[in-house]
Amino acid sequence: MNDILITHFHNDFVIIISTPSYEAEEHMNDIRSLMHPFVEATESPVTPVPITLAYGDGIGPEIMKASLRVLEAAGAALAPEMIDIGEQVYLSGNSAGIAPEAWESLRRTKVFYKAPITTPQGGGYKSLNVTVRKSLGLYANIRPCVSYAPFVATKHPKMDLVIVRENEEDLYAGIEHRQTDDVYQCLKLITRPGCEKINRYAFEYARAFGRKKVSCFTKDNIMKLTDGLFHKAFDEIGAEYPDLEKEHWIIDIGAAKLADTPEAFDVLVMPNLYGDVLSDVAAQIAGSVGLAPSANIGPHCAMFEAIHGSAPRRAGQDSANPSGLLLAGVMMLVHIGQPKVAEKVHNAWLKTIEDGVHTNDIYVEGVSHQKVGTQAFAEAVIARLGQEPVYLAPVRYEASAGKPFSVPVASARAPARKEMVGIDVFVHSTQSVEDIAGLVQRAIIGSYELAMITNRGVKVWPNGLPETFCTDHWRCRFLAAEGRQFNKAMVVDLLRNLCQLGVDFVKTEHLYTFDGEPGYSLGQGQ
Amino acid sequence: MNDILITHFHNDFVIIISTPSYEAEEHMNDIRSLMHPFVEATESPVTPVPITLAYGDGIGPEIMKASLRVLEAAGAALAPEMIDIGEQVYLSGNSAGIAPEAWESLRRTKVFYKAPITTPQGGGYKSLNVTVRKSLGLYANIRPCVSYAPFVATKHPKMDLVIVRENEEDLYAGIEHRQTDDVYQCLKLITRPGCEKINRYAFEYARAFGRKKVSCFTKDNIMKLTDGLFHKAFDEIGAEYPDLEKEHWIIDIGAAKLADTPEAFDVLVMPNLYGDVLSDVAAQIAGSVGLAPSANIGPHCAMFEAIHGSAPRRAGQDSANPSGLLLAGVMMLVHIGQPKVAEKVHNAWLKTIEDGVHTNDIYVEGVSHQKVGTQAFAEAVIARLGQEPVYLAPVRYEASAGKPFSVPVASARAPARKEMVGIDVFVHSTQSVEDIAGLVQRAIIGSYELAMITNRGVKVWPNGLPETFCTDHWRCRFLAAEGRQFNKAMVVDLLRNLCQLGVDFVKTEHLYTFDGEPGYSLGQGQ
Repeated sequence: MNDILITHFHNDFVIIISTPSYEAEEHMNDIRSLMHPFVEATESPVTPVPITLAYGDGIGPEIMKASLRVLEAAGAALAPEMIDIGEQVYLSGNSAGIAPEAWESLRRTKVFYKAPITTPQGGGYKSLNVTVRKSLGLYANIRPCVSYAPFVATKHPKMDLVIVRENEEDLYAGIEHRQTDDVYQCLKLITRPGCEKINRYAFEYARAFGRKKVSCFTKDNIMKLTDGLFHKAFDEIGAEYPDLEKEHWIIDIGAAKLADTPEAFDVLVMPNLYGDVLSDVAAQIAGSVGLAPSANIGPHCAMFEAIHGSAPRRAGQDSANPSGLLLAGVMMLVHIGQPKVAEKVHNAWLKTIEDGVHTNDIYVEGVSHQKVGTQAFAEAVIARLGQEPVYLAPVRYEASAGKPFSVPVASARAPARKEMVGIDVFVHSTQSVEDIAGLVQRAIIGSYELAMITNRGVKVWPNGLPETFCTDHWRCRFLAAEGRQFNKAMVVDLLRNLCQLGVDFVKTEHLYTFDGEPGYSLGQGQ
Repeated sequence: MNDILITHFHNDFVIIISTPSYEAEEHMNDIRSLMHPFVEATESPVTPVPITLAYGDGIGPEIMKASLRVLEAAGAALAPEMIDIGEQVYLSGNSAGIAPEAWESLRRTKVFYKAPITTPQGGGYKSLNVTVRKSLGLYANIRPCVSYAPFVATKHPKMDLVIVRENEEDLYAGIEHRQTDDVYQCLKLITRPGCEKINRYAFEYARAFGRKKVSCFTKDNIMKLTDGLFHKAFDEIGAEYPDLEKEHWIIDIGAAKLADTPEAFDVLVMPNLYGDVLSDVAAQIAGSVGLAPSANIGPHCAMFEAIHGSAPRRAGQDSANPSGLLLAGVMMLVHIGQPKVAEKVHNAWLKTIEDGVHTNDIYVEGVSHQKVGTQAFAEAVIARLGQEPVYLAPVRYEASAGKPFSVPVASARAPARKEMVGIDVFVHSTQSVEDIAGLVQRAIIGSYELAMITNRGVKVWPNGLPETFCTDHWRCRFLAAEGRQFNKAMVVDLLRNLCQLGVDFVKTEHLYTFDGEPGYSLGQGQ
């Protein structure tokens, strides 16, 4: 095991990044069956655990080298398989930034330790992180944000929270369409299984790690269906955890509270976009985004990484802080059942921080004692392995954390009674709303009517206001007469008639009720 | 004028809220022609300017009373017309929360001074603020966030920034659909005229108020079409303002920077949701959301309000801080051409704050000198009218601000060459992706093919990964053969065939190129 890692440390990184680790491959067959998330801790494992490893771009290789040195010196039993991801893969013509062979390694090891990568500028490149998270079903993004006052400058010395971010859906579905000259659209998708999984994960995590409170953040005063679903799942699932305190915040004022008084929070759970923004806020105000790790957890696999990017301009200078990636390695060790090693690394790191051995990003004259580079920082942590912090609280992974828990993929639920009641047809037009209303009404054959037209969600027909600014993108809502249903044959007829009338329809959204409840929002002003 | 206002102060608020001000009506005809945004300042106006006024819900009436007392004592020439909005209007069965007559007043006065309102819990109520903003085309939400250290506790003593938030579109279009058992959707709409207007407003505002830098926040690394458009408009329009410094931040790390180092920012411009969240963050870390005003500006009308809510539990206690609404009144005075009065009120308010006369929300033992209620705070400001702050910088509206500027509604732009190349059909199914692919391919007649199927944006056919979690909501992308076009007749045929095959399609999104550029995103992993 040591030989394997030492080989990597002394090799040229460029070569390593693009060459699979044959040494690691040899160990793989032995322990393949060992790996799945949340296994019971098997201490002092004699067999190295295979992990998939990517050195990434920019500062990635140097912080990965530093992190692996520390993990290895602490006795982590790891058998890494190297894969190619990132800039070179993108530029070779793979728009996903990850080679097909890489998926096989990930499927085999089920654990991915990943340095930051660079997505090339320009169109057509999909976010690798989003692709990996979603393809592997890594639905939970876990981001602990802790302040280390007075050793790392922060305005929030008592901060110790964990953000549990939904990781697969929301606007990150990446489904965008431009359909008129004026209007571009992105779909925000929120799903019941997604909401159930992430909320349950947050409550289970809070219990397993001895946390007391779970706070949910949404904007369900505006997005009553999508964010409303997330909030509802939080309430429903939270009821099964009477031992935990629960609260809900509207995202705007919740974010304000978090930015000002982070010590008021413990575990936070929220949809993807809010979690993306607020986990960066929380990490930054704790001290530095350079210190924050993250875990991406799914039922099959898990990925561990720093939250910061690849900082291409600082690459190769031996100045980057490896702490985020190293602490992600600590989370990985807990995950794969090596909490003793995790504890050893984490406490040595805390001791290094409180000894004032700091990389440039957190170095402060008068507080720090020694400014070091990336590799010297790793050496300082290694020199402290076995020590514990004196002023900061030491971590105890064996006692309180790493307790296995599992989250069901989705609750069994009978399908709702879905009835179609109408359709929203979106039209591209520069005509007046009265002209559009007159035209599309001519396409109606049957017992339904044009109920309203909105522009950017605002009702502009009937009885619109002349002050409402209108784009070239009109939603025409057709509703079945009271007590009647709409059906797909009517959709086909309506669209055929609109087509023959020369109406430039660009998209449709069917309107349904579910168990009698409308599955669609009203127009603003309706 | 004085008589009118004093009448209100001594009346029962409940009666006033539901009774139009007949006195104000009398003045209205005289000065109707005077009112439109950004008129040149006419100092010492002899004729009161009509404004529409709503006392709102919760703490609304008491803070509005306090604010009007100060404005009136300072010599503001206002002729208010009262309208009904909020909780009682909602509960009377009006889902928009604003009575039809109210629109007439708003259209007449073009200026709305609004106390916070309460939206009742439960479904079906649309946000009044969103409705008013969008119906009246109030596209720019202006939120100055200033810290008042050491008089108001803050961790950010050097903060003085203005957030210019796009106010009409984004996810706040409020267009939501549930179309399967699992999946709920909200449309994020971003438009070219919307992006152009708000970015130009930000640059014009920066110039008019002597600001130096404009920072744009988007998430265009993920949302390349929608947020990409916002960023592009920022760059294009910014090029016309060489005197101003410009920068762009990805929203997550930008938010982190703002929360940690707000003094690094000057004017910020961003889409609606980001602006909603970050303006609350900025206001809170400056000292209190209770101090922050906001203006909502459009080509026809403008609305001025505090950023905080109606706090129903604190209503009627004479304890709320009227500062947010009062400072919104200051912005209103600048807007309607009374900058001298605005300056007088603002400087007296600053003097009150630095004298330590504080309401409960900002009272700190040892810093504050006197804890006062809502009305006593107003009296303290009135007592200081004509004075200026000694430690805090006095404001100067006459010299640097209120310079009229206008923003064109939208740039003239020739329509792009739009060509249809395919369609995304979204299908509700609990079958396997292979079964779905087989079924929908049977509906194809013509020279196009099923190019991919995604689930929550992740490509699952062809060549999906077994680890990808799938909901019951599948996007089937049909693309025309190379060099061929798709057309609406093909849409009708495809949907008719799908209908006959029993495929439960729930929505469509047409795929277009614009001047040859694809107007749609790839699937993740595609």
